[in-house]
Amino acid sequence: MRIIHNMDEMTETARGWLAGGTVGFVPTMGFLHQGHKTLVQAAHQECEISVASIFVNPIQFEESEDLIRYPRDLSRDLQLLSTTSIDVVFIPRTEDIYSAGFSTYVMPTSSQWAVQPAKGTGSRIYARGVATIITKLLQLVRPDIAYLGQKNAQQIAIVRQVVRDLNIDVGLRILPTVRESDGLALGSRNHFLTQPERRAASVLYRALLAGKALVDGNVRNSAEIEKAMIDLVVTEPLVNLDYVKICHSDTLRAVDTVMPGTMLMIAAHIGIVHIIDNIIWHGDTNWLL
Amino acid sequence: MRIIHNMDEMTETARGWLAGGTVGFVPTMGFLHQGHKTLVQAAHQECEISVASIFVNPIQFEESEDLIRYPRDLSRDLQLLSTTSIDVVFIPRTEDIYSAGFSTYVMPTSSQWAVQPAKGTGSRIYARGVATIITKLLQLVRPDIAYLGQKNAQQIAIVRQVVRDLNIDVGLRILPTVRESDGLALGSRNHFLTQPERRAASVLYRALLAGKALVDGNVRNSAEIEKAMIDLVVTEPLVNLDYVKICHSDTLRAVDTVMPGTMLMIAAHIGIVHIIDNIIWHGDTNWLL
Repeated sequence: MRIIHNMDEMTETARGWLAGGTVGFVPTMGFLHQGHKTLVQAAHQECEISVASIFVNPIQFEESEDLIRYPRDLSRDLQLLSTTSIDVVFIPRTEDIYSAGFSTYVMPTSSQWAVQPAKGTGSRIYARGVATIITKLLQLVRPDIAYLGQKNAQQIAIVRQVVRDLNIDVGLRILPTVRESDGLALGSRNHFLTQPERRAASVLYRALLAGKALVDGNVRNSAEIEKAMIDLVVTEPLVNLDYVKICHSDTLRAVDTVMPGTMLMIAAHIGIVHIIDNIIWHGDTNWLL
Repeated sequence: MRIIHNMDEMTETARGWLAGGTVGFVPTMGFLHQGHKTLVQAAHQECEISVASIFVNPIQFEESEDLIRYPRDLSRDLQLLSTTSIDVVFIPRTEDIYSAGFSTYVMPTSSQWAVQPAKGTGSRIYARGVATIITKLLQLVRPDIAYLGQKNAQQIAIVRQVVRDLNIDVGLRILPTVRESDGLALGSRNHFLTQPERRAASVLYRALLAGKALVDGNVRNSAEIEKAMIDLVVTEPLVNLDYVKICHSDTLRAVDTVMPGTMLMIAAHIGIVHIIDNIIWHGDTNWLL
């Protein structure tokens, strides 16, 4: 496992790979968990060269407190990665990624990013931050395939649109969300949940499953499904629901009627922790949970 | 000389080149002249594979009339290119480059683009248009070196900033402006000058040379040099001066005092034709004319 901090070294290394085998890339913000590890293992199995990056991207945070308290533990991350067969870990410095004079952003302008579904997420600033950093990382690492977890549906939608609109020659592999035994989606910020909050947090996945039960029972009306999900979440007073959204799984545009390809999304704040989750219905009994 | 219209074919072809030799790329808007030909010949001589693109980029035009009347003559362009040893000509369709749902722009936000030094140029819209199309073309063609002519200093400054800020692994080769015998910089739009306008147009280069004479005579005060240049241009009533600017040749930021690396820029409208030109002083008797 080789660690690269220097941007020029990463560029040179990636250039060398172009003549070699396929490169699989897992971009992360660190504080790694089993979900990240699953992505890294898939990249290693499916590609000849596997790379992960660790970079807490400041420009995708709307509030500086959220950036400041984002969990970081590099030695723990490197420990976890050393148990995988990852080839390279790229850990650029913030002052190199956004060096003096940096002034060019990648800007998603679709109207879906104009609406701010929850404080700190889904806004234009978040979309611009994600779009800019993924473009930069894809230029630095030049992978054939980038690996992302299904949990962060907004991030996936942004990356998919950027790759398509800027003609970046990279495939996207989206792997299912990894969950705790009670269904809570793994997430770096879960670390900050108190024990009562942690217990309450499982209501988010239970709400998604309540929505699923209705769809499985042939309910197709989004408003009815959303209401059932909301009614379940409000039984947990520690959970501050940000939104429930029933939408197209690629575009994230809200739909009135559930159809194959529809996603049920949920977002909430529990204490200081922002949690998101989603499941996708692919028709009949096919769900991505 | 292979002609590629299809975007996927370009992507596949470029991917194939990655394991091969160096790729030199000349992006153009067509209506080619000797300046373009010089770039193509350099790409052919210096790289193993040479590619030119022809694409009139609609999103960099602020006024639709200017886009509509931009000169086009594809058969003449292909005729000219066939006299070179170019390997591939990439001619994408507008509806493929900006397909339905396109919504991601590359946005230079430096304050220098907020000021609109002349109608139709230098604005944020122009900067965004150039930044977006060059990013897309560099992803599609994946060259090692991109070739640009010195004449369009704003374009060069934008491309340099984009490549730096987005970490695109491409070198830039800037070749000197190619001029008519009276000094007028070659340009696709020159085609639209009437005979009297064409004769008057040479005043722009003469104004640059008047500025040069002052620098060579040890004048360093930008205001004094600008005044001398303006005084010369106003002797030609057919020429509507947009601006004279004395600035840093990389950042295009105005400077009060001339020093090595300073650029003298000029822009004017003559009839319906917008003309730009520049020269750079590198110290002592070294000029890029």
